[in-house]
Amino acid sequence: MKRIQLSHGAGGKEMGKLIKEYIVKNFKNNKAEVPLEALDDSAVLDGIVFTTDSHTVQPVFFPGGDIGKLAVCGTVNDIACLGATPVAMATAMVIEEGFPMEKFEEILKSMAMAAEEAGVEIITGDTKVVERGGIKDIVVTTTAIGKESRWLKSNWKIAGRKGKWLLDSMLRPGDKIIINGCIADHGIAIISKREGYGFEGSVVSDVAPLNGLMEEALKEGGVVAAKDATRGGIANALNEMAEKSKVGIIIYEDSIPINDATLAACEMLGLDPYSIGNEGKMLFGVTKEKAEDVLKAIRKHKYGKKAEIIGEVIEGNYVILETSVGGRRILDAPIGDPIPRIC
Amino acid sequence: MKRIQLSHGAGGKEMGKLIKEYIVKNFKNNKAEVPLEALDDSAVLDGIVFTTDSHTVQPVFFPGGDIGKLAVCGTVNDIACLGATPVAMATAMVIEEGFPMEKFEEILKSMAMAAEEAGVEIITGDTKVVERGGIKDIVVTTTAIGKESRWLKSNWKIAGRKGKWLLDSMLRPGDKIIINGCIADHGIAIISKREGYGFEGSVVSDVAPLNGLMEEALKEGGVVAAKDATRGGIANALNEMAEKSKVGIIIYEDSIPINDATLAACEMLGLDPYSIGNEGKMLFGVTKEKAEDVLKAIRKHKYGKKAEIIGEVIEGNYVILETSVGGRRILDAPIGDPIPRIC
Repeated sequence: MKRIQLSHGAGGKEMGKLIKEYIVKNFKNNKAEVPLEALDDSAVLDGIVFTTDSHTVQPVFFPGGDIGKLAVCGTVNDIACLGATPVAMATAMVIEEGFPMEKFEEILKSMAMAAEEAGVEIITGDTKVVERGGIKDIVVTTTAIGKESRWLKSNWKIAGRKGKWLLDSMLRPGDKIIINGCIADHGIAIISKREGYGFEGSVVSDVAPLNGLMEEALKEGGVVAAKDATRGGIANALNEMAEKSKVGIIIYEDSIPINDATLAACEMLGLDPYSIGNEGKMLFGVTKEKAEDVLKAIRKHKYGKKAEIIGEVIEGNYVILETSVGGRRILDAPIGDPIPRIC
Repeated sequence: MKRIQLSHGAGGKEMGKLIKEYIVKNFKNNKAEVPLEALDDSAVLDGIVFTTDSHTVQPVFFPGGDIGKLAVCGTVNDIACLGATPVAMATAMVIEEGFPMEKFEEILKSMAMAAEEAGVEIITGDTKVVERGGIKDIVVTTTAIGKESRWLKSNWKIAGRKGKWLLDSMLRPGDKIIINGCIADHGIAIISKREGYGFEGSVVSDVAPLNGLMEEALKEGGVVAAKDATRGGIANALNEMAEKSKVGIIIYEDSIPINDATLAACEMLGLDPYSIGNEGKMLFGVTKEKAEDVLKAIRKHKYGKKAEIIGEVIEGNYVILETSVGGRRILDAPIGDPIPRIC
């Protein structure tokens, strides 16, 4: 009998297969402007951008944040990826009987703070409690609705290309790929805390709401695609974008920002930082004419100080990594994120 | 140390306290037209009706349905309660590693069928998998957006009262209370299957999408409030409506439809059917002038065949139950639904 595996929920190839062969197959969309089949970060119907995420991160409190902040930011970022502004959020919480009330309130406060920073209101919710052992601690599901950013139309005009939303399928050869900062911090912070590896002092999750950063990029103009590199890391996100856009992408290893402590942890644990999830990193596809300007605009934002142009879009079918010594290898989508329960 | 209890998620008084003292306190709404504080079945922002529910029912397959059908219907019904039509749905699933793929697909098919019946499309989703024991089987969170029903304005005109959405706070003395059929079937079906009591042959969950029924009622006109009587049963739903409307409600025991087998099961198990959750029952508040007409309209619908006028709104602060022998007692909101994990 076929059974659900951890890799089915870990970003990467196995999850892609499950979604295509089971979920998309059963849920056909006719009305949506950006439908489920697009498998983009959000769907769009009648101008309403719509996205949902269940959060199961363990531990629920980790260096740099907690499940509440993660839930709000993860969903805000999926709205922002389309070039949209989040306007309202719903939160459904499933809590394990016996979970300490003060920790629950800490999570609520953290959600409220993240929502305030993102300028989104949590307007509806649901609370379920299950018996001890029925779940571990708490699962927080956040769903957001968003509307077109006020800069989205001018952004496309500046790009000189026809488009409405920022979609994974909009990359064209010549476009540049920008990332807003260091990779792999979130996954390493989680596993370090969970397994007691002791990197927590030096590696802190990057979890952050990126809608403000997106506004700055759109205001500058020339952005054609964006994707937050969560489960499966930048390796998964870049492969999804390349596949949907029917292009290749070349990435220069030397240009990818990564903190020394995170890199050291990856080397010690034998983990590939490109496959490790982030919660505050967005990949932007920008026309080559505007790439430097967008980079400057992003760097002015507090979540973009270490932004870099890390690669460019080429003809082809693969994501290629050019190493520091000039070697080239295919950067494949991982089977799944090597670290489970990061979000 | 204060800890989360099962009753905090079971409908009823304890849940109400948790929501008011923790959730509402932390999430303040300024922009919403029907905000979180209203604690209605859905919120409304800029004309968009918005609601979310996590589903943790055990067992996931039960007489009359499964967690997939339940998730779609539960969320559709919360949209319908406001006098709105569901237009799009998001689904976030957390699955336990090892869950059989064919059961997963059965759940997806069941969601697709319920969504088709309700005329709503599932346009976005998320899938997480957690290690064995991290949750039990599957948690399905559904979130829907809806828009004003095409009959809502004419409904209010016919009611002869000022209103926009159907809110729990809109009942006025003289209004009649209608229910669309038999109570307590869902809770009894769940507990019977779970505990192996053997009523499953005769008691089947009432889970159903009620938006079509709502349209019929609105087309007739005169509806001022509606609430689906889920966790905590009609006792909880009626008390919430009475409290928010600042009225009393009198209910006539003889008029409340209940199946013989369900009543027998309740008596055998010592359970109060008024506190037991339903998943296809809606309480309508209707002006006295239009109550008989709305009743007729509801009875023509397949989910309203056994509808009855079960009571009326009075001056006062309590929900009062008039028994078959003419005695009167206060029908209080339960502490919580006596049957855990019904939804």
